[in-house]
Amino acid sequence: MRRRFTAARVARLATVRPDGRPHVVPVCFAVDGDRVVSVVDDKPKRSAELARLTNVRAQPAVSLLVDEYDDDWTRLWWVRIDGTGVVVDGGADHAQAVALLATKYAQYAHYRDDRPSAAVLAVTIERWSGWSFG
Amino acid sequence: MRRRFTAARVARLATVRPDGRPHVVPVCFAVDGDRVVSVVDDKPKRSAELARLTNVRAQPAVSLLVDEYDDDWTRLWWVRIDGTGVVVDGGADHAQAVALLATKYAQYAHYRDDRPSAAVLAVTIERWSGWSFG
Repeated sequence: MRRRFTAARVARLATVRPDGRPHVVPVCFAVDGDRVVSVVDDKPKRSAELARLTNVRAQPAVSLLVDEYDDDWTRLWWVRIDGTGVVVDGGADHAQAVALLATKYAQYAHYRDDRPSAAVLAVTIERWSGWSFG
Repeated sequence: MRRRFTAARVARLATVRPDGRPHVVPVCFAVDGDRVVSVVDDKPKRSAELARLTNVRAQPAVSLLVDEYDDDWTRLWWVRIDGTGVVVDGGADHAQAVALLATKYAQYAHYRDDRPSAAVLAVTIERWSGWSFG
């Protein structure tokens, strides 16, 4: 499960809104030991990004899903992480997360120099779940 | 947004657990007017399937995400539906949902005859959200 999850290029982050409704967005991410990190980047989707941070600040329980779809359903699988999220605005944790993301995604390389003010969401992994057809 | 969502083969369904934590699973689905329908099939993932139904019965607010990932980030997009879910155990609504799913997915064709006891989750669409890079 860990191998499949770590190798994936995109996960879906589910959080709970302050009013108790669910929220879900795709995220680029990296696995760093017992944590999953992602960063709020600067592309024009700011309101959606802020929603997830607002949500995590109020309800830190989050769920992250990686799945593979194929019309051959014998190939289906998914892996989910349940954990606790925290918003990291700076410091060594922030720098380490950004460096790891820049290693996985070339698109984040400019963050190495720019020291973005963009927040990092760090999720401590508490539970792995998974399913595959076979 | 509707076209992209409807054509997708898989969506991610986010619900909220009775204890207030989020839950997310991939689902096969079909759009039927102002509703999104999916069915709990008979593959060996029963406990995960039941979790989503338990969640919706307690908190009917759900969120469904379709997204496309590409390492060329100018191609990224996602579409999300927020809505209200209901579990349909039988009747005309159930039959119509199963027929629609069997049209979209050949793997569900046997459901036409088998009249599965599998529950249908029907989500009434309340809000469309979307983002694309461009």
